[in-house]
Amino acid sequence: MTITGTTRLFGIIGDPVAPLRSPALFNAAFARLGRDAVLIPIAVPEGGLAEAWRGLALFDNLDGLVVTMPHKTAILPLLDALGPTARATGTVNTVRRRAEGGWEGEMFDGEGFRDGLERAGHAPAGASILQIGCGAAGRAIAYALARAGAGRLVLHDTARDRAEALVVALRAAYPALQVAVGPPDPAGFGIVVNATPLGLRPGDPLPLDPAALRAGQVVADVIPNPEVTPLVLAARAAGCATVTGRAMHEGQARLAAAWLGITGWEG
Amino acid sequence: MTITGTTRLFGIIGDPVAPLRSPALFNAAFARLGRDAVLIPIAVPEGGLAEAWRGLALFDNLDGLVVTMPHKTAILPLLDALGPTARATGTVNTVRRRAEGGWEGEMFDGEGFRDGLERAGHAPAGASILQIGCGAAGRAIAYALARAGAGRLVLHDTARDRAEALVVALRAAYPALQVAVGPPDPAGFGIVVNATPLGLRPGDPLPLDPAALRAGQVVADVIPNPEVTPLVLAARAAGCATVTGRAMHEGQARLAAAWLGITGWEG
Repeated sequence: MTITGTTRLFGIIGDPVAPLRSPALFNAAFARLGRDAVLIPIAVPEGGLAEAWRGLALFDNLDGLVVTMPHKTAILPLLDALGPTARATGTVNTVRRRAEGGWEGEMFDGEGFRDGLERAGHAPAGASILQIGCGAAGRAIAYALARAGAGRLVLHDTARDRAEALVVALRAAYPALQVAVGPPDPAGFGIVVNATPLGLRPGDPLPLDPAALRAGQVVADVIPNPEVTPLVLAARAAGCATVTGRAMHEGQARLAAAWLGITGWEG
Repeated sequence: MTITGTTRLFGIIGDPVAPLRSPALFNAAFARLGRDAVLIPIAVPEGGLAEAWRGLALFDNLDGLVVTMPHKTAILPLLDALGPTARATGTVNTVRRRAEGGWEGEMFDGEGFRDGLERAGHAPAGASILQIGCGAAGRAIAYALARAGAGRLVLHDTARDRAEALVVALRAAYPALQVAVGPPDPAGFGIVVNATPLGLRPGDPLPLDPAALRAGQVVADVIPNPEVTPLVLAARAAGCATVTGRAMHEGQARLAAAWLGITGWEG
C-alpha cells in the first residue's frame, strides 16, 4: 500500500488504540481491493472527543471513522444524523460522511456480535442467554440478540441501574421478549456473553465464576485482543464451546465496511 | 508497511493535498527504516486551521506535522514554541511534539531550497540573485540565501508591500547584504528564483518574461508538482541551468525529517 496526497482517510478513534485490530483488518482490505485509502489509529483520551471531532470533521479527505471505547456514547450529540440502531441503543461505532453534507453515525457492535455468533454455528434465536455487561457494546448486543429472537435474556451489570434501564428499553422495543436483570450465574443458560471490558488488561478479574460453567454451554467474549481471554480459556477447560471477540470484531468490521461504502470486503 | 494500532502518526496539513510529494517520500523512508510510523495527507481549507489543529493536538499518537500552503503563517500563534528560523521569518513548515509537553514549530523551506541549490552545484554564496515571490516560502528562502552569503538579492512580489517588508527585515538581520525591491526582469542575474505558486495549476501565467532569460543563468523553481513547470521548460529552451522544486522539496524533507527525529533518512 502506498500512501500519497490523494489517499482518502479513515480512522479509528479510541483510547487505548494499541490493541485495536481494525487498522490491520481495514488496511489489508484496502490493499486487496486496490483502494487508495488508509485507516489510521487515533488515540484520544476520554473528555477529548468533542474537540478532536471538531478538528477531524474539517478534514476534507476524511471519509469515515470507527469509534471505540471510551467514545461510543459521547460521539452521538456531535453528529448530524443517526441510523436506526444508533438511535435505539444510544451508541455509535461508525461515522460516515453524508452526500448532503455533515456526518452520520450507526452502531454495528451488536449486529457484528450476532453475525459472529451465527457464523460460529450458535444462533441466538430461541436461546436462553446470560449477558454480563450493559455498557455501549452491551446495549447494542442485547438489542441485536432481542432482534434475532432470543428466547430468554438475563442481563447483569455491576452498575445495576444500567442493566435495569436496558431491560426497560428492551421490553418497550420487543414486548414479546423475556428479559430481566439477574446475577452473573451461568447455570441453566445456553449462551453466556461477556460484554464487559474484563479480560482486556492482564490481571483483570473474570466476569463470572468459571466453576459454574458446564460442558455444552456456549461462552462468547467481546474482547478482540487478546483473542483468547482468561474467560475463554476457563470456558474451554470446562468443556464449553467458545466464540472469541475476534468473531464479533470481524462481523462488526464487515458490516461497518459495507456501510462505509467499502465494497468487496470478503473478496 | 503495515499500519496497526501501535503505528505513530505524522501528517502533512494543507490545501490542496493531492499534488503533495511528502506522503510518498516519508512513507518510503519509514518502510526503508522499518519504523512503525505513517505520514498521512490532511486536507484542511484556509480558515479551518485553528480548529483542525486544536483537534490534532489532542491525538496522543501524533508525533509531528508538516505544514504547507495555505497554513504556513496561520499555524504560528497556535504553537507553544518556535525555532530560530520560524521566529525570524514568521513562518512554520514543521511541527513536533516537545518532550516537556506542547508543540514546537520550525521552518525548513528556505534551508531546504538552499540545500537543493547547492547539491545541484549552484552555491548562492556571492551570487547575484533575483527572487520572485515573497510569501511564506519566499520569506524563508530569502533568509536562507542571505544567510548563505548571497552577493546581491533583488526581491519582487505583485504585492509590493510584501517585498518591501522583507527587504527591511533582511537589512536588519543581515546589514552587509545588498538587498532591494526590483522588477521581475532576470537580465544580469546569475540565479533566478520562482518562489510564487505560479506553475502549480495548468494555465498559470509565467512569473517572468522568458524572452529575457539567457544561457548560463540558473533558474530555480519551488513548485514540486509538476516537477517540470512551464518556467523550467522555458528556461531549458533558453539554455539556462534549472533546479526544480523537487530539489527544494527533497532538501526540505531531509531537514524536517532530521528535526522530527527520523534518523537514517538518506539510508
